[in-house]
Amino acid sequence: MIAEIIAVGSEMLTPHRQDTNSLFLTGGLNKLGVSVAFKTIVGDNFQHLVSAAGIAIRRADIVIFSGGLGPTEDDLTREAAAAALGIDMHRDPAVLESLRQRFAERRIAMPPNNEKQADVLDRAILLNNKTGSAPGQWLDTAIPGPEGHPHRKIVILLPGPPSELKPMFDAECRPRLSAVLPQRYIATRMLRMALIPESTVDARTAPIYQKFTDVETTILAGSGEIQLHFSTTKPSQKEAQARVDELAELIEREMGEDIFSAQGTSLEEVVQLMLGLRDLTLSTAESCTGGLLAERLTSIPNISRNFIGGAVVYSDALKTKFANVPPALLEQYGAISPEVARALADGIRDFTGSSIGIGITGLAGPAGPTSGPDAGRPVGLVYISLSDGEDTQVKQLQLPGDRERIRLWASQHALEMLRRHLQ
Amino acid sequence: MIAEIIAVGSEMLTPHRQDTNSLFLTGGLNKLGVSVAFKTIVGDNFQHLVSAAGIAIRRADIVIFSGGLGPTEDDLTREAAAAALGIDMHRDPAVLESLRQRFAERRIAMPPNNEKQADVLDRAILLNNKTGSAPGQWLDTAIPGPEGHPHRKIVILLPGPPSELKPMFDAECRPRLSAVLPQRYIATRMLRMALIPESTVDARTAPIYQKFTDVETTILAGSGEIQLHFSTTKPSQKEAQARVDELAELIEREMGEDIFSAQGTSLEEVVQLMLGLRDLTLSTAESCTGGLLAERLTSIPNISRNFIGGAVVYSDALKTKFANVPPALLEQYGAISPEVARALADGIRDFTGSSIGIGITGLAGPAGPTSGPDAGRPVGLVYISLSDGEDTQVKQLQLPGDRERIRLWASQHALEMLRRHLQ
Repeated sequence: MIAEIIAVGSEMLTPHRQDTNSLFLTGGLNKLGVSVAFKTIVGDNFQHLVSAAGIAIRRADIVIFSGGLGPTEDDLTREAAAAALGIDMHRDPAVLESLRQRFAERRIAMPPNNEKQADVLDRAILLNNKTGSAPGQWLDTAIPGPEGHPHRKIVILLPGPPSELKPMFDAECRPRLSAVLPQRYIATRMLRMALIPESTVDARTAPIYQKFTDVETTILAGSGEIQLHFSTTKPSQKEAQARVDELAELIEREMGEDIFSAQGTSLEEVVQLMLGLRDLTLSTAESCTGGLLAERLTSIPNISRNFIGGAVVYSDALKTKFANVPPALLEQYGAISPEVARALADGIRDFTGSSIGIGITGLAGPAGPTSGPDAGRPVGLVYISLSDGEDTQVKQLQLPGDRERIRLWASQHALEMLRRHLQ
Repeated sequence: MIAEIIAVGSEMLTPHRQDTNSLFLTGGLNKLGVSVAFKTIVGDNFQHLVSAAGIAIRRADIVIFSGGLGPTEDDLTREAAAAALGIDMHRDPAVLESLRQRFAERRIAMPPNNEKQADVLDRAILLNNKTGSAPGQWLDTAIPGPEGHPHRKIVILLPGPPSELKPMFDAECRPRLSAVLPQRYIATRMLRMALIPESTVDARTAPIYQKFTDVETTILAGSGEIQLHFSTTKPSQKEAQARVDELAELIEREMGEDIFSAQGTSLEEVVQLMLGLRDLTLSTAESCTGGLLAERLTSIPNISRNFIGGAVVYSDALKTKFANVPPALLEQYGAISPEVARALADGIRDFTGSSIGIGITGLAGPAGPTSGPDAGRPVGLVYISLSDGEDTQVKQLQLPGDRERIRLWASQHALEMLRRHLQ
């Protein structure tokens, strides 16, 4: 069974907006054992919509439309699906009544254009919309194939807003699709690594995962992280899970401590768990990352038990005030130096009384200082230091890319340095 | 002239990856007066690719493929475009030679599968790839239309990596498209507003922009910001610019100080400009936003002249240490109180010696404290305070949504409060 997702809306044909529903829908379909073979994005144009709908209905077994179910003139998905399938629509009195009630509750007269939200493809089942007004539709039908035999087709119309589409897919489509599809059991696993080149991970893991021809392996790389995704389908859930677990264990044995998460948790969460288990507290003194490390740590709920806070020490004066960095040190070595990184980590730890202090100083660019002790230092030069009261380590990095990338990778290196220290 | 973009790659049919090249390509095409009518995403499957290519070539005047030009077995875009167009390919000796040289420079023997990167559609022009190995291709051809007359078609093959696709489109495709397309002049403007409901903006601006039927107006809302995009096409650049400027000025008059940017600059940049113009310095003391405000400010290059730094005061002890918040105040009112917000803003300003201090305290969730003076306070309750030495203002917010959204909106409110204060 293959599926096609059609995202409807002219805003997704501008440089500003993108279809994101299809990622969610693809995840849901994959879990049911259905692959997505095509995604089409089409504007609010009747002719284009009918053409795209016709093509999808011919080439896919399951066609899911998202968007174009609202009350405005631009909302044409119902009409286009009907035209492409060559079937009629009727106005459903119960839907009409519930639309009227929604307006009555807000003490507004319903504008007549809203009535079209009650138009239903003949023989379609209505899908309840718990979070919005337009119901979805489910049509289980057949069209003649090239050789004349009927081909079964599932056509699903879903509203565009993710807050309506997601609960509707989960509550109304998933069980219906399960009932229609052959019973299959899928298991997945994800292993996560930080800061290792993708080619290194592939060179070391390919000889292992290539032997598991029944497991689909995907390597994703980005933002200083490598993810290995494993997925397999078996006659029983137990068998499927055992197979991806078997592969994951072999890869874990090969990559060892490079793997920060064997169950999908993020680097921030792993760090929080490890700090929590060892009952340690952390503080940070950030220059070039400007609060990004603290922001990433505090994106995790309940981290306040272990992360007590930190300082963004953008100016030299604040490096001294918040982290006791001696002005003489700044003058002698410059702010972007291993000496100052070390002083920041030690200083913030002392000042806050935390178990561990992290200091970051560097040059995120686009330009560097032209005078003083830091003059001529290259953009991308970053020092990260970690102090635990016994020892203070410093790491020097030369990061490529623009300001945003340098800051992101510097924060990633700091988190990974902390994780390896805690391990 | 209408265009279709075909993004090629099985990874974009997973729940993890999305096509982003099409946003860049759409922007480039729109500037040349070409609308994108369809976007198709298809995997590395020869049959699916040929089918998608054939449909696109029939329904669009310009078809741009991104991806599938590499050396692996999965890279099938060249072959599929040739099959769909019914034309042959030849192996270009010059491309072959330059591929061999690339490998020779790295002292590696070229694996034979790389040779297919030299396969060129007959009569296609090669597009130079300055940042990678596979050249792009440009084919200006014609296919018979439904009524038998030839229809001109431009078919463009571009590599998938954005770092190769973007410079190739700019250097090799833009001038060729300009030469082929009828001369048109497009002007655009963007107005940006923060924290106003989209419906309010639309209600106040629609009566104005609806009179400009020759200007396309798009309203985009997200992350606490509203953008109004205007675009028009005229026989001269001057005329086009004058028309969007005329509309922008009327909207500016209506929305007044709600507009933070009339030229497209971000809220962070506007704040930086205003601080710079008035030669003011800023410091921040953040609790629930955990460094997000500092991180957003420091994403702007050269802000170090005005933003000297700040503190992430997650624990009560650090609120006292970094911003001199009296422990008695924390005990009496709790950390999530207007009193503590005020003390944070005043305290960080005093401690750092900056012209302006901002304090943020609140409850980002998912759960709130169950004991102490903050017990029972609702998730989403946030206080933001701004102190300038003469006056200290405090704003109370009740923000909806999850932890991420509450933190983002709190930082947005702080930036907007600062902008309005500086205005």
